[in-house]
Amino acid sequence: MKTKQPNSIEWKDGSLVLLDQTLLPTEEKYVTIDTLEKGWAAIRNLIVRGAPAIGVTAGYTLYIGISSKDISDIDDYLAELKEASEYLATARPTAVNLFWSIDRMNARAKQEFENGKTVEEINQALLEEAKLIHKEDIDICKKLGENALDVIKDGMTVLTHCNAGALATSRYGTATSVFYLAQEKGMDIKVFADETRPVNQGSRLTAYELDKAGIDVTLICDNMAAMVMKQGKIDAVIVGTDRVAANGDVANKIGTYNVALLAREHNIPFYVSAPLSSIDMNTPTGDEIPIEERPAEEITEGLGARTAPVGVKVYNPAFDVTPHHLVMGLITEKGIISGDYSKGLKELFAD
Amino acid sequence: MKTKQPNSIEWKDGSLVLLDQTLLPTEEKYVTIDTLEKGWAAIRNLIVRGAPAIGVTAGYTLYIGISSKDISDIDDYLAELKEASEYLATARPTAVNLFWSIDRMNARAKQEFENGKTVEEINQALLEEAKLIHKEDIDICKKLGENALDVIKDGMTVLTHCNAGALATSRYGTATSVFYLAQEKGMDIKVFADETRPVNQGSRLTAYELDKAGIDVTLICDNMAAMVMKQGKIDAVIVGTDRVAANGDVANKIGTYNVALLAREHNIPFYVSAPLSSIDMNTPTGDEIPIEERPAEEITEGLGARTAPVGVKVYNPAFDVTPHHLVMGLITEKGIISGDYSKGLKELFAD
Repeated sequence: MKTKQPNSIEWKDGSLVLLDQTLLPTEEKYVTIDTLEKGWAAIRNLIVRGAPAIGVTAGYTLYIGISSKDISDIDDYLAELKEASEYLATARPTAVNLFWSIDRMNARAKQEFENGKTVEEINQALLEEAKLIHKEDIDICKKLGENALDVIKDGMTVLTHCNAGALATSRYGTATSVFYLAQEKGMDIKVFADETRPVNQGSRLTAYELDKAGIDVTLICDNMAAMVMKQGKIDAVIVGTDRVAANGDVANKIGTYNVALLAREHNIPFYVSAPLSSIDMNTPTGDEIPIEERPAEEITEGLGARTAPVGVKVYNPAFDVTPHHLVMGLITEKGIISGDYSKGLKELFAD
Repeated sequence: MKTKQPNSIEWKDGSLVLLDQTLLPTEEKYVTIDTLEKGWAAIRNLIVRGAPAIGVTAGYTLYIGISSKDISDIDDYLAELKEASEYLATARPTAVNLFWSIDRMNARAKQEFENGKTVEEINQALLEEAKLIHKEDIDICKKLGENALDVIKDGMTVLTHCNAGALATSRYGTATSVFYLAQEKGMDIKVFADETRPVNQGSRLTAYELDKAGIDVTLICDNMAAMVMKQGKIDAVIVGTDRVAANGDVANKIGTYNVALLAREHNIPFYVSAPLSSIDMNTPTGDEIPIEERPAEEITEGLGARTAPVGVKVYNPAFDVTPHHLVMGLITEKGIISGDYSKGLKELFAD
């Protein structure tokens, strides 16, 4: 049985086709990216979001931008590539994967140039590189799901928080990958999705993509997690991560630490799907991870109606840190790390 | 220093004046109730809400309805009172305080009638009774706050969930009473208010009434509670209750159980402000308290915009049960019960 997960990023007839995530869950509209400027705007305006998905979009967009230029001189070409890269990098100045992808595309161009390739040949190499970034993302996500199948078993009901889903990557997602793979294998896995206030990625995106794919998903508010756990409805928790510290502490969407504590209280294992790209060995512990505070309006009027008095004091941290002792396992594309995270992660990167 | 808490229910120039809570927090409009039908509609349409506030409104409304009739015959009067009572009881068929208040008004009329009083005298007695219900509510709430001052000390920051506030009662509220009393005494108590999804009583009502009264209140999403506790921002939690079982288990707005677990994890005392009227000695434990499930739309489109796909499965329990072992104390108008709740509550009601 094939999954019907959303095709949020597709390379089709020489253009990039993106599912416009700003319109979800009420409208499914696809946007064709055929110029550098459109790719820039798609990243800027959150038509595409999620670190891996932004990286993939940036690769294709840079190819589209440079290959459309009518340039024969190699020096002009390289100057133009530099300019396009600098412009694209301004789309979302805090998105690490954006820079990573742009750097990788430039490194490939440099390598081809040093090998004496022509403009036309370099263009072809850049398309290859963009497709490679895309494919690697899918492969990593799929591997995360396969490894998660060591702990997420047939018949389980799993709670997830925020959207570490197919919509945030090319396909499969990180935390959600195991749900799609289980579906492909004909297994029966049910999901509870936390709404994830204040931006509601859980209800707008996770519930949308799983429901659309035909996976049994139930939406709850964040504050219902303890009750459904107490009722015995939840067998495991799996979430994504924005950054894992070298000691295994996990920064993720606000509310993740709540879920981890509640899971432990109810003896439910709490797993984090963490691709190697999210593990930062230069950050010793969660204490060193800066927590972004976001505008009050996300809480007070983010969903259409104003739900709090004008001018009321608001605290709106975007992330929290779950200490590693609450984490039953870090699921990476190279296997599951558990127990002594400092040791396990060091060994993982020593390979 | 006097508090500036909202005057949500006021008897003024022979009419009842209600703050229209359906328009909060964006608009402050007062509605004058001068007919039985307007009182009925105010209860039905949630212009007034909260068990004690509904009881007070029902008392005045019944007086308004019956005293406006031009009746001299006592039998006609009693028949009319019966009819008005039955009509008023249909306004919110699940509101226990509505029936309690109507019964009490009828009992007073019966007593006056048996004492040979005239229609005019019974009318006056009914106004007295309505004012007494009103005054008793204020006195109980004030006493709850005074007793809470035994555990909520100057300089503390207290987290609360939902709205057990002045807006749900005549004045002071139950859980919020201690904040208003502390303000009157010139003490410095700060409050964190959980948004309280899905109906947002925390952001729409609690943040509104405390902010308006000049109390230092910070609004957070429900899923931020663990983080602010870990940051050391919270010294105590105080919430209201819909029903306390004979063993001390506490039913309250969904999410309360989450907060209680997170508080214990961070060694923060968790208190419940529980007027005697909320303690049900006929319910042995929390397991016997039925949990109302409410419509999916409260979660999926309750805040103005649709935030979840149409047709997605939703679980929306309105309440949860916090087991008594997580409760540091039940604050009643007769003092604080803690430790062995079965024994303590039995003794309380034996008095």
